[in-house]
Parts: sequence; structure tokens; C-alpha cells
Amino acid sequence: MTNEAVNYMNQALERAKAGGDAGEVPVGAVLVERASGTVLAADHNQVETLNDPTAHAEMQVIRAGAKSRGDKRLEGCDLYVTLEPCAMCAAAIAHARIGRVIFGAYDPKGGGVEHGARVFEQPTCHHKPEVVGGINEIEAGEILKTFFREKR
Amino acid sequence: MTNEAVNYMNQALERAKAGGDAGEVPVGAVLVERASGTVLAADHNQVETLNDPTAHAEMQVIRAGAKSRGDKRLEGCDLYVTLEPCAMCAAAIAHARIGRVIFGAYDPKGGGVEHGARVFEQPTCHHKPEVVGGINEIEAGEILKTFFREKR
Repeated sequence: MTNEAVNYMNQALERAKAGGDAGEVPVGAVLVERASGTVLAADHNQVETLNDPTAHAEMQVIRAGAKSRGDKRLEGCDLYVTLEPCAMCAAAIAHARIGRVIFGAYDPKGGGVEHGARVFEQPTCHHKPEVVGGINEIEAGEILKTFFREKR
Repeated sequence: MTNEAVNYMNQALERAKAGGDAGEVPVGAVLVERASGTVLAADHNQVETLNDPTAHAEMQVIRAGAKSRGDKRLEGCDLYVTLEPCAMCAAAIAHARIGRVIFGAYDPKGGGVEHGARVFEQPTCHHKPEVVGGINEIEAGEILKTFFREKR
């Protein structure tokens, strides 16, 4: 990973922790316009806060990023997220034409990229981003484990 | 289908047409609380209008319905939609714990229920709704075909 990429993933991890402090499942995401290095949006899960079952971290930054750009497509953008996206978020990433997805921990129970629906591998998927998984995997997973341990 | 179900699907078809008139891909959805028969939300695609790649008809009614109920879960609700949901919408339906999905036309190119990701069949899917496909299939498909024919 480049220094810039490490920096963006660290921002996503900070968001994940902030999400956990707010009582959300601690997953964070950062959407970056690659050419300019501009962070278009950064957020964490907001499912509980917004009573919105679709408000995963990835959905939040895709919606905010597209709105701020005034464009339904996020071509040339990279999405950093601390956990493997679920099928909903993976399909949203494809709809938005995001160029690259960099994720932290793998999610065998709920993931939709390397597990389960494997959205990007389907013939019904009309855009396949570059995917880099397992970045800061241990820290990303530890944030989630600590959260669920404390919940019990 | 019961008379009530026919009525809800007709409402979804009306929404689809209104979406097409607004320049959106004409898909409509209606979210109904089954026990009371209350329509919690009805909408069409808003991708173009909102510059939001996630604003499919199903996502719109899930988000609005959960907000109006003040609950991230939509247990006991039925979702009527004129086209087979994509993987994003199917996974959102599972996240929201919607009880039943009634859809119109099948979507071999982009569907995620009976095609491609087959989201509800995956071990990573934690809630599988009852699914009834092909209701008002011809009319639902015709609205889409007419729209794309006129676009060309």
C-alpha cells in the first residue's frame, strides 16, 4: 500500500471506532477521488441512529459522494472500508462504477465480495472494480471483536 | 393473488409509469404492513433525480418505511415491486427482514433473486423472505420495454 492508501484506511478505522462509540456496528468507510486525492465522504454505519437498514458505511459514503459530485457515477473513485462489503454494498459499488475497493477484515458470515453472493463475479454485474482485501485486517477485525465482546 | 395484492401491484405499476415520465428507469415499489394493510411507502426509481446510484424503487420504500415506523426492521411487511430486485435491493430486503417480496417482470440481465447473485439462496443471507415472481409480468415488462424503445 502507498502512504496515501495507509492514510485513507486509517481514516476509515477511525470512523469505525467512532461508529462503535455511537452504538453502531463499527465499520467505517472513506471515499476518495483518486486523481485529486480529495476525500469526498467519510462515515460509519448509521443503521441504528437513522433507523435505516440500508445505512451501512459504504452506502453512506456512496450516497454522500454522488450527491457532492452531482453525479450518479463515481468513476475514478476508490472506496476504503474496514470490513468486506456485504452483497448490498458490493452491488451499490458496481452501480456507482467505483474503480477500486480496498477493504480490511474478511467477513465469511456476511460478506458479498469474497463470500456468499460474490457479486462482482456474477454475469449480472455490469462493473467489476479492482478489489484489494485484507488491508489492516487485524486492527479492523479487532475493532469489531471488541465491540461484540462488550455487547454481550 | 388476492384482490388486495392486485391493488398493491397496480399501485407499484402506476409508480413505475410516473418514474418513466420523470426520466427514471420505470420501476415502482410499494411497501405494505400486512396486518393493517397500510401502505408505508410507495415510490419509483430516483437515481437520476437524486444523483444517487442506490436510489432504486425498493431502496426508496425501505428507507422511507423504516423511517416512518421508527424501526430498522420491517417485519410483517410485504414489498411489491414491478421488476425482480437486483442484488443490492435483495440484500437490503434481507437486512430489513421484510416478510414477502412480490415482483413483476423477471430480470435475467440484472436480477439478484432468481438470477446472478441469488442473494436469498446464499449462506451469508440471514433472512429469506417468501418470494412470488412474475405477477403482472407482461405489463411490468412492457413499461420498461416502451421506455427503452423511446430512449433510443
